[in-house]
Parts: sequence; structure tokens; C-alpha cells
Amino acid sequence: MRLDQLPTPQVLVDRPRLLNNLGRAQAFAAAAGARLRPHAKTHKSPVIARWQIERGAAGICCAKLGEAEVFAEAGVDDIRLPYPVNPSNAARLMALMDRASMSIIVDHPRVARGWSDAMARAGRTLDVLVKVDVGFHRCGIDPDAPGALDFVRAVASMPGLRFRGLLSHAGHGYHAASEDELASIAAKELEILTTLAARAKAAGVEVAELSVGATPTLRFSAKLRGLTELRPGNCAYFDRTQVSLGAAAVADCALTVLATVVSKPAPDRIILDSGSKTLTNDQARGIHKAPGFGAILTSDLSAVDDSLLIERLSEEHAVVRVTGSTTLEPGDRVRILPNHSCVVSNLVDTVRLVEDDRVVDTLTVAARGKIQ
Amino acid sequence: MRLDQLPTPQVLVDRPRLLNNLGRAQAFAAAAGARLRPHAKTHKSPVIARWQIERGAAGICCAKLGEAEVFAEAGVDDIRLPYPVNPSNAARLMALMDRASMSIIVDHPRVARGWSDAMARAGRTLDVLVKVDVGFHRCGIDPDAPGALDFVRAVASMPGLRFRGLLSHAGHGYHAASEDELASIAAKELEILTTLAARAKAAGVEVAELSVGATPTLRFSAKLRGLTELRPGNCAYFDRTQVSLGAAAVADCALTVLATVVSKPAPDRIILDSGSKTLTNDQARGIHKAPGFGAILTSDLSAVDDSLLIERLSEEHAVVRVTGSTTLEPGDRVRILPNHSCVVSNLVDTVRLVEDDRVVDTLTVAARGKIQ
Repeated sequence: MRLDQLPTPQVLVDRPRLLNNLGRAQAFAAAAGARLRPHAKTHKSPVIARWQIERGAAGICCAKLGEAEVFAEAGVDDIRLPYPVNPSNAARLMALMDRASMSIIVDHPRVARGWSDAMARAGRTLDVLVKVDVGFHRCGIDPDAPGALDFVRAVASMPGLRFRGLLSHAGHGYHAASEDELASIAAKELEILTTLAARAKAAGVEVAELSVGATPTLRFSAKLRGLTELRPGNCAYFDRTQVSLGAAAVADCALTVLATVVSKPAPDRIILDSGSKTLTNDQARGIHKAPGFGAILTSDLSAVDDSLLIERLSEEHAVVRVTGSTTLEPGDRVRILPNHSCVVSNLVDTVRLVEDDRVVDTLTVAARGKIQ
Repeated sequence: MRLDQLPTPQVLVDRPRLLNNLGRAQAFAAAAGARLRPHAKTHKSPVIARWQIERGAAGICCAKLGEAEVFAEAGVDDIRLPYPVNPSNAARLMALMDRASMSIIVDHPRVARGWSDAMARAGRTLDVLVKVDVGFHRCGIDPDAPGALDFVRAVASMPGLRFRGLLSHAGHGYHAASEDELASIAAKELEILTTLAARAKAAGVEVAELSVGATPTLRFSAKLRGLTELRPGNCAYFDRTQVSLGAAAVADCALTVLATVVSKPAPDRIILDSGSKTLTNDQARGIHKAPGFGAILTSDLSAVDDSLLIERLSEEHAVVRVTGSTTLEPGDRVRILPNHSCVVSNLVDTVRLVEDDRVVDTLTVAARGKIQ
């Protein structure tokens, strides 16, 4: 099937770009001497997870149990949830442990005790890592707090838990002002983890793993020594934010949205059929914060058409401001690079794998919407 | 089942509030002497559409053909698409015309001609309305442009099309600065439509319908005379934006998100399991623009807990800033009023109908993700 035979809007994934990106992530892990464990949230596809594992990935990450259930069902047998899953979900996690090697993070005494109690009661052992806040200030223990080492020691001694190591996510890299800042975030992250690990080891706690994961800092973490695991997600597809962060070129971005011009109410305004139900209202983040809700690409898909600005979205409309003039008329089609590819794949049941102007396969976004 | 037995996050719809809202919309239409044709984008549920029709709605609106296909399959037999559907979709629309009374809008000569050609070629007649831009500046013809009347006359004379009237959407009401401004937007909308309709009638064109639709202006449009149809969508559920616009009280809002505290990394910061994959990154709009990505409700669900601010979202995390102190700890649950309910229901396969703390039914969001 050719692209022009598809109804729109349609989420497309360029297969050559995707496969190139998968290999590149694996090469970063090899350079770091670390295992690669991609976060599957970006593609939510067991087929792509399989391709990642075939290229050397040690397993995958998911955020929620519902996602892990989809990938375990599809045969992925090593799944880490770098998410503070609540122990109220113990029955579901134990069912998963029968099918796959599972691990989670803990960052709170009450949660760690809850998991310990549930596992000890069932006579089972759950692999856990302690989540460390390296500056993003979302989840994670404060490594400088007086109780940080005590928490690690407590977790390592809890029945039903097997302490594996420390894990972090440098999500503040998305707000970096320069590539130098990204490099320094990656270096600081390693320093925080190794310092806490050294203190834990001095206290008699074995720390087998130091795991980090975020696409913006990936290329900088890859140059460091001492990490055991990299968990990037977005680098399978990339997006406009990653281009802005210097993590990818436009020509690396695998996921685009095919949209149709549905109206041209004024010479300087065209309307596309891709609204927030396709692109989301996520803003572009990154060093060079670009305005608009995604970027319309030039016809060779290697650059952004700066004469077209996706100024606002309704659920089913994109309002595009035209600078100068455009030959686009209703019925014409464009390709859009979204600000954030992970949330776009979460909106559709399938993505089309494409090569040039041909659809070569249709992938089910099997873990779409698995928020629980 | 009780609410505390549900995994989270979970999208809940309070059935008494929903049914009350459906009746209230019908009463507004009765007051206006107009038909009610709710936009189904808010609930995307054939069950709720049926309840709307049972209460007197003349039919429903959808944006995309894929949504209309779901509702037609479920037996809804009168569907309007107030969306500039492209004639490249003629085969799908004609298939729908075999099952339901269908109508669309046109706002561009090329699109109108495309539909005329397709319908005339097939020996069929499609009901169309001309979309008029009443100030939102998204789709629609400019009513003051020299060619406005000519466009209406041209559409009315095209083979294969049956011109029904004029249609508008006062989406700029979402950005009103006061209730007075909302009232004046509604009045201006009627004036624009009646003026153009009078010119068309003077030119020999029959204008059977004047259709408007937007929840913020609904209560003001209901006081006017001359409209034939109201097409509000959001007023089935309402949300934080509608509260801000004075269209609803918190106690009217039917859709909420049940979330669990999964971490409390600092006394002034808690993390919920409802991220942008549940709440979306849509900002609150309205007169009193409230900060944050949804509002955490007090335990009686009648007001907002102002001590808790949902400061930022990741895909699976809500980072909540605590002003003062909170007794919330990991494992505790909260109810969130989203900024925008329509986009929340688009993220989940099912919503739970609830009364007090009981789940009374589960509704499939059958038209979720139907972007084409």
C-alpha cells in the first residue's frame, strides 16, 4: 500500500530510521560497558521490543503493571518497572513473576515495607532497586538527606526483597539550556550514584547495579565508566524535543504523523485533521524551545518547513499559521514531526511501518493506554 | 464493587451527576426553542448517546467518520459532522448514509465542489451546512468577506448537495475574560448567523437551520430566539475549565480520575499514579485560569482542595506540591477533576459509572481514538 492510500491522520514509523536508532542505542550501551534496557513506553510494541532484544538489549522497562502484562504475554521475560508501584498491586506483580524476571524500584519506607510484607508472606523474593533523585525532583530518595544510607540499608535487609542497586532518571535533562549542561547532568548523576553506592558498600551492602536512563543524557552517559545499565526510551523514535536537545537530527526521527489539509479559511491559515487527539498538547522541550505543537516537515522529511507554524490545536484540528504563502490546499497532505513521540503512540491502536512512500507493515500498539 | 477495590488510575463518571447534566442540556434547548444535538466527542459512548436521545436529543454530532461509524453501528440514526470532512472520504460517508441520516459542513469551494462531484456522480444527495467563523478563527467562512454570500449561493446550487443552513462554533468563548463577554459572544454569534441568513434568503436561498454549539456559551444561547439547534458536548461531563467559565459548579462535574499516592519523596511533594497518559497536558482555560493539571477534590467531591497543586505531569506521574501539610501517604487515594474531560475519556477503553462509593456499571468508550 502507498501512503497516499491511507486515511489520515495516521501515525507512521519509518522502519529504516527505527532500526538505525535501535542499533545506535545498543552502540551507546556497548561504549559505556553497560547493559541496554530500553523503556518500552515509547513504542508500546512487543514486535519492536523483540527487535531491541535481538540487538542485545537485556530486557525492557515498563512503567505500569498493565504494560508489563502485555509484554510478558508476548514472551518478553525480563522486565523492570522503574516506577514506584504500590504494594496494593502485589497479586498482579506476583502473577507476572511466574512468567518473567521482574524488578521494581522503591523510594519510600512505607512502600518498601509493604512489598517486603507481601513477598515474605507469599514466600517469594522480589528484586528491587532504590530510586535516587539526581535532580529531577520527581520520585526518588534525596541522596544528601541524613536518612538516605539508612533507607538503602533497610531495604537491603528486608525479608522478601533482594536489593539489586541504585537507579535514577535525569528527567531534568529535558530542561537543560545547553549541551554542556546535559554533559554535566550525566556526570553528576554518575557521581551521585557512585557516592551513595560507596557508602552502602562501606556499610556492608552489596550494590550490583547502577542504572540510569533518559534519552537526552544518553550520549553523555555512554562516555562514562561505572554504570551497569542504560534505560533510554524515546531514542527508538526520537521527536522534535530530542532534536532540540541535540540528541537527534530531524532525519533520525522515525515517528511522524501524516495529516490532510481540510480547510484553508484564509491565505495565511490552513487547518489539518491532526488535533490534540493525535499530536497531544505537549509542548516542545529542549535547548531551542520551538513554538508550536509539532513541526511540519519539508517534502524530503529531512528538515522543518519554517513557513508553517502549528499555532494551536483543538481535539481534531490543527490551526497552522502560514508565513508568506503556501501552495497547500484542502486535500493536500503533510508530514508532522510531533513534539513528543511517546504520547503520540499512546493515542493510536496501530502504527504503520513505512519505507519511503510504502506501508510495509502495521504494528499494534499493544500496550497503549495501559495506565494501571 | 466498591471504588477502593478498583486499580488506579481509573476514570470515573458519577451517574447521578451525568443524568442531571443531560437533563439540564435538554432544558436549555427547550428554553431556546431549538433542537439539542449533543457532540458525542465528550463521552464517545453509544450508551450515553442513547440516554441523550431518550431525553429528547434530535441526534448527535461527531467530528470524524470513524466516530460516526461507531455510533451508526450502535443504532444512532441521525449524525451530523460539524467538521470539514475531506471528499477523499466519500466512499465511507456514502456507506454511512445507507445507515443513518448524515450531514456535514463545508467552508471551502474546493471541498464543496469535491463533495458535489462525488455525490452527483453517485446519484446521491448530501445534507450540508455552511460553517461560519463567528470569531474563533479556526474553520469557517468569514461572514464579512465579499465572497461570503456567493459561497452560500454556490453551495445551495451545487448538484448532489442539499443546503440546510448555517453552523458555527464559538470556541473563543473558552478564552472569555468574564461572563458578560460570554453573553456577548453568544449574542454576536446569533447576529452574524441571522444577518448572513437574511442576505441568503434575500438572494433566494432557503436557510432552514441556524446551528450553534459550545458549552461555555450554552446558557446564554439558551436565552436567545432564532437558533434552531444547540450542539454542546462537554456539558455531559463538565470539567475544571467549565467551572472556571461559570458553566458548572464543581458539584456538577461528572467525570473524575481516581488516583493513588505512589510516593512522598518530601513533606511538600507527593506523587500520584495519574500522569499525562490519564489527565493529558491540557491546561485549564476559562475566566479564572487555575494553575495545575487538574484539581484534587475535597473528600465530599464538592470543592477543590487548594492545599494540593498538580504542578507537573510525566506520562505516569503527577507531581503534587503541598502547601502547608498533608496527611496523604503512599497507598492513599484522591479524586481529581481534570482540566478537560473530553480528552481524558479519549485515553481510556472504559469508564466506570459510579454512585457514591459503588461502581454501578462499566461503559466502553467505543469511539475512543477514532481520529480518522
